[in-house]
Amino acid sequence: MEFAYLGPRGTFTEAALRRLPAAKGAATVPMPSIPEILDAVRRGDVAAGFVPIENSQEGTVTLTVDELVGGDPLVIAGEVVLPVTFVLASAKPLAEVATVASHPHAIAQTRGYLRRELPNAAVHQALSTAQAAQRVADGEFDACVCAPFTAEAAGLPVQAFDIGDSSGAETRFVHVVRPAAPPEPTGNDITSLVVSIDHDRVGALLAVLTELAIRGINLTRIESRPTGEGLGRYAFFLDCTGHLADARMGEALTGLRRICADVRYLGSYPRDHSDRPVPHPEGLSDGDFADAAAWLERLRSGGAA
Amino acid sequence: MEFAYLGPRGTFTEAALRRLPAAKGAATVPMPSIPEILDAVRRGDVAAGFVPIENSQEGTVTLTVDELVGGDPLVIAGEVVLPVTFVLASAKPLAEVATVASHPHAIAQTRGYLRRELPNAAVHQALSTAQAAQRVADGEFDACVCAPFTAEAAGLPVQAFDIGDSSGAETRFVHVVRPAAPPEPTGNDITSLVVSIDHDRVGALLAVLTELAIRGINLTRIESRPTGEGLGRYAFFLDCTGHLADARMGEALTGLRRICADVRYLGSYPRDHSDRPVPHPEGLSDGDFADAAAWLERLRSGGAA
Repeated sequence: MEFAYLGPRGTFTEAALRRLPAAKGAATVPMPSIPEILDAVRRGDVAAGFVPIENSQEGTVTLTVDELVGGDPLVIAGEVVLPVTFVLASAKPLAEVATVASHPHAIAQTRGYLRRELPNAAVHQALSTAQAAQRVADGEFDACVCAPFTAEAAGLPVQAFDIGDSSGAETRFVHVVRPAAPPEPTGNDITSLVVSIDHDRVGALLAVLTELAIRGINLTRIESRPTGEGLGRYAFFLDCTGHLADARMGEALTGLRRICADVRYLGSYPRDHSDRPVPHPEGLSDGDFADAAAWLERLRSGGAA
Repeated sequence: MEFAYLGPRGTFTEAALRRLPAAKGAATVPMPSIPEILDAVRRGDVAAGFVPIENSQEGTVTLTVDELVGGDPLVIAGEVVLPVTFVLASAKPLAEVATVASHPHAIAQTRGYLRRELPNAAVHQALSTAQAAQRVADGEFDACVCAPFTAEAAGLPVQAFDIGDSSGAETRFVHVVRPAAPPEPTGNDITSLVVSIDHDRVGALLAVLTELAIRGINLTRIESRPTGEGLGRYAFFLDCTGHLADARMGEALTGLRRICADVRYLGSYPRDHSDRPVPHPEGLSDGDFADAAAWLERLRSGGAA
């Protein structure tokens, strides 16, 4: 049961993978790019992949979204959401730091701190925060900007915590497998979908959202994606509250199937947000659906309503 | 009239900037990160910035979107859409290429070609495709994967054209300035907005899309963004067809202003897609609006309808 994740070792992605319940005790292998990881999962070379899907530290995750939207089918079996925090890691005290290295995006997100506390330090770009930390450990640079976990993995002391210019940011990672039955519903799940629509975009998107809204299904994320199939075909990546096994989700999915040019199911999985439970929508429980179906059946068979 | 753009020289961004009409004859200066460029525009150190906003080659543009959504106000004054193509650039014939360098995303998007044509070459990661090309020009590596423009800028011959694994991809760049009146309407314009809504996400988003749809305004892009303001507040980045000066856009904007927690106008600007004209929506021209307003005025003043 091997997990391939976006390497190198010591990055945010490895820190996140350690928090995924399904990865407990599993062997993990770093791989250099998102498409290679997803292809390895598709071929069955590894049992699962673990990649960022919303992330501002180490580069785009357009690759992840577009592989899930357009590549051979894969499904999401879990997610991990990590708060984004940066530290200044160095074996030297701040006053002796003359060079700082990091990934360009991590530098960009800590530039207020660097300008204020290390105005005279030369700033160097690295391929990843983990590579920067390794180069500090090797003595090439004095300090690096990285996650606390990355500093720990490289054996570097932390000279300053929480040096990001803005707080509250999160990075989201997904556990990806070949098409399979989803994990059991937990009552706080996400179902990810790609819906493709033709013609007028606003009108068709209104119809899609209506299918969700009338079943009490909320969106936690929506993003339009180019389809590469020419004019007039649009794809939307949707994260919806609820589970494939819920009656209301089943009815919404069949509604989307009827009105969309294409619907790709990308998995139902537990939400990694214990602080955001999904309110139970009134009249939309599985029991409500069963009652209503039984009532319709009685009507159709000529019985008493 | 200086344009700051995402450097270094020789990347896709510089190639795109050369196609922006407003930049003709302007001095251009490369800067190392998107936030630095946008801050330089805000301070007035440069007249304009030019940054990627949808891009899969050189890293995330979450930074651009989030700066426009949440930073001090800026507006978009123009866009450039470039098709994404990769070449193999080298002074050596393919048979003599033992090492290839590029940005990790460019490597990922040409891995089919590299596996097929250069199965024995060692692949090295670089900070950007332009840095890879420079290192090839310096003799450190044999070949690089980059855009045709980047090879030309580095003085490298192209050994193979169009080596990307998928075609049809585009990269989109925006011309950003301090808040100002938009360029004149061209009949094929985009208006970019950020709308913030509270409470139920699907229901509130349905209301937003309805305000657009009933005025014949289409969406060319929608993306939800975290607001960092805690639970229950959602922000959507919208690209809408039409111009601020259009009567129907004016009515839609006032409708959004009434129903949304916040609406941030991000500019109206000509669309860089000559092949996708916006159809004139029936009954929604400025003349139709003027006729209808005059009719209502007559009714209210007790005149003949």
